[in-house]
Amino acid sequence: MTAELISVGTEILMGNIVNTNAQYLAQQCAMLGLSVYHQTVVGDNEERLSEAVRTALDRSDIVILSGGLGPTEDDLTKEVCAKVMDMPLEEDAHSRRMIEEYFKSIGTKKVTDNNWKQAMVPHGALVLDNHNGTAPGLIMEKNGKTAVLLPGPPVELYPMFKEQVFPYLQKLQPEKFVSRMVKICGVGESKVESQLLDLIDAQTNPTIATYAKVGEVHLRVTARVKNDEEAAALIKPVVKEIRKRFGNAVYTTKEEETLEMAVVRLLAKYELTVTTAESCTGGLLAGRIVNVPGASEVFREGFITYSNKAKRKRLDVNKATLKKYGAVSKETAREMAMGGVFATDADACVAVTGIAGPDGGTEEKPVGLVYISCYMNDNVVVEKYQFSGSRDKIREQAAVKGLDLLRRCILDNYGKS
Amino acid sequence: MTAELISVGTEILMGNIVNTNAQYLAQQCAMLGLSVYHQTVVGDNEERLSEAVRTALDRSDIVILSGGLGPTEDDLTKEVCAKVMDMPLEEDAHSRRMIEEYFKSIGTKKVTDNNWKQAMVPHGALVLDNHNGTAPGLIMEKNGKTAVLLPGPPVELYPMFKEQVFPYLQKLQPEKFVSRMVKICGVGESKVESQLLDLIDAQTNPTIATYAKVGEVHLRVTARVKNDEEAAALIKPVVKEIRKRFGNAVYTTKEEETLEMAVVRLLAKYELTVTTAESCTGGLLAGRIVNVPGASEVFREGFITYSNKAKRKRLDVNKATLKKYGAVSKETAREMAMGGVFATDADACVAVTGIAGPDGGTEEKPVGLVYISCYMNDNVVVEKYQFSGSRDKIREQAAVKGLDLLRRCILDNYGKS
Repeated sequence: MTAELISVGTEILMGNIVNTNAQYLAQQCAMLGLSVYHQTVVGDNEERLSEAVRTALDRSDIVILSGGLGPTEDDLTKEVCAKVMDMPLEEDAHSRRMIEEYFKSIGTKKVTDNNWKQAMVPHGALVLDNHNGTAPGLIMEKNGKTAVLLPGPPVELYPMFKEQVFPYLQKLQPEKFVSRMVKICGVGESKVESQLLDLIDAQTNPTIATYAKVGEVHLRVTARVKNDEEAAALIKPVVKEIRKRFGNAVYTTKEEETLEMAVVRLLAKYELTVTTAESCTGGLLAGRIVNVPGASEVFREGFITYSNKAKRKRLDVNKATLKKYGAVSKETAREMAMGGVFATDADACVAVTGIAGPDGGTEEKPVGLVYISCYMNDNVVVEKYQFSGSRDKIREQAAVKGLDLLRRCILDNYGKS
Repeated sequence: MTAELISVGTEILMGNIVNTNAQYLAQQCAMLGLSVYHQTVVGDNEERLSEAVRTALDRSDIVILSGGLGPTEDDLTKEVCAKVMDMPLEEDAHSRRMIEEYFKSIGTKKVTDNNWKQAMVPHGALVLDNHNGTAPGLIMEKNGKTAVLLPGPPVELYPMFKEQVFPYLQKLQPEKFVSRMVKICGVGESKVESQLLDLIDAQTNPTIATYAKVGEVHLRVTARVKNDEEAAALIKPVVKEIRKRFGNAVYTTKEEETLEMAVVRLLAKYELTVTTAESCTGGLLAGRIVNVPGASEVFREGFITYSNKAKRKRLDVNKATLKKYGAVSKETAREMAMGGVFATDADACVAVTGIAGPDGGTEEKPVGLVYISCYMNDNVVVEKYQFSGSRDKIREQAAVKGLDLLRRCILDNYGKS
């Protein structure tokens, strides 16, 4: 089956916002096994929107529209779809009640007239409750074609799609698609692909798709199946084979788990605490750890030692080391990591020192040169990296590698994930 | 004049990447005064791409395509446009030389055959040199319609558009559009709009567009003019009026300057250094300062004091203060900021302590409660905020307000920006 996306909104046409809804919906369609060949953006203009909807219904089985469901005169998506699909609008008692309840819940006493526009529903359409706003979503079916109308704000669109539209579309399909994520850190995309070439070449069901992230590669293994048992039977051996090939480079197979979440999970599991000693990343690494809810269990404090003086004072880095090898060196990274543990009661310390640019690089120590160190159990590891890209990209890559080095050290010292 | 965008790429259709090129190009078109009524995404499929190009050329004056210019068989954009516009491909000696030089510069000895495909140019087309990759861009004109073909990678597309396409399109227009950015921090979007209502309502030329960012509002003042003198005459009084109404809340009128750049610029101007004492932001605030090139002049070190023990040890926060008022309190924020200055030789310290959630909130101290403090010149300021949103959104807003408080303290102590 084919699906296509129509995003309605002047703010996208003007470039005021980036069209993240289209990405989300495209990903969801891919997970549902729907082929998306077209995405369109149009404004709240009756003529252009009508034409876009007609064209889309003509060439695709399912048309997913987002935006233009609000209470103002400008919002036309529902009206246009009702006209194009010849399903006249009528007041829906349930939608009216939902709107009343919503305004009551946010303490509004007098609901303005234009809000009742949102209780009008195309004849025969299925209403999708909106638990995060007033505009209900709609599913309209006619002549073997399906139109799905969703509100524009992501905070309303995402849960509505996940809870109500995804299961609906899944039922339209004779087969369902089940997928499993495998997240890898520390191996480049081309290397991941070449190590999986035989699997990728041979793939029919399940398929393996690779997605490159900063410092990471995510693999989605997707099976086309009739039920969950079949899914498990098809997916499990592939995931096992990937794990076998990449070992500890696989940091999670959980869809929602980020690298920092995996690190915090491992630290908590082994009852370890960590501190950070950052130069060029300047708090970025600690910031990612702290962004994990419950980080306080494993992270008490961190140091941002940007100057040499701070490295000496806070982390007891030797003056002679700084003089002889420089702030960006294996030796300084090592002493920073050791110093972080000695200055605190943490079990481990990750240290980062490098040249983020755009200035400050030399022939010997070019921009992008970063040393990352981890001290744990009286043992210190230092890794050298040469990153490329802008200052923020270099810093981001360094933070990712810092998290990953910490993760690998925990596994080396305390066992498997 | 009307323009429309066609993004070519399966990775957008699959949702692997978000279509940031379309946002960039839409913004540029808005700056050029071009009306964009349609954006389309299609894959590398000859039939669908041909139809998209035909439809677009039919209804718009200018069609801007991105992606599908690479060396592989899949890349079809140039071939399709050449066919649809009937401008047959022929080898371009200049493009061939550029490709040779590019490969030489990156140290490749043997250029694979498929790369020469990129030297083929539609008859009569203007070639746009690509200084960041091998695929040249193209401008094709026929029957009063213009097609602009750009490579997909943003690192190639952005500079090519800025340096070569923008001036070209500007010349196509009888009038030009000149705009100036005014960036505001510390005033909400609706308040900014209501305080500018008379200007926005009365606007014809220049126009004022507002863009909400996290903790910031950006205003773009755009004039439709014949020359730069006219632009200055139209824009200057409006910018002056905005400055008058928002005072120090305006942190810059420079297009490229971010809030942290403005802060670092002010610190450098008054030869001040700053340190940071972060609890819930966990390095985010320092990280933004460090992301500014040259930050080492004004920032030497920072503290991430997530636990109470770290707050006491590093920043000398009083045990009694923590016990009586708690870690998230005006009193603790104040002592953290003071402690940061006393523990270092910095001239100022920004401190942040709050509840980022999702857990840890109480009736009295709900999730999103954040105290931000700045100590400078024996004077300490504390501000209380109640943010909403996810953990990372709360932390991001806190970091923005921390930067802004520092900025305002510098202005209060040392004069105007």
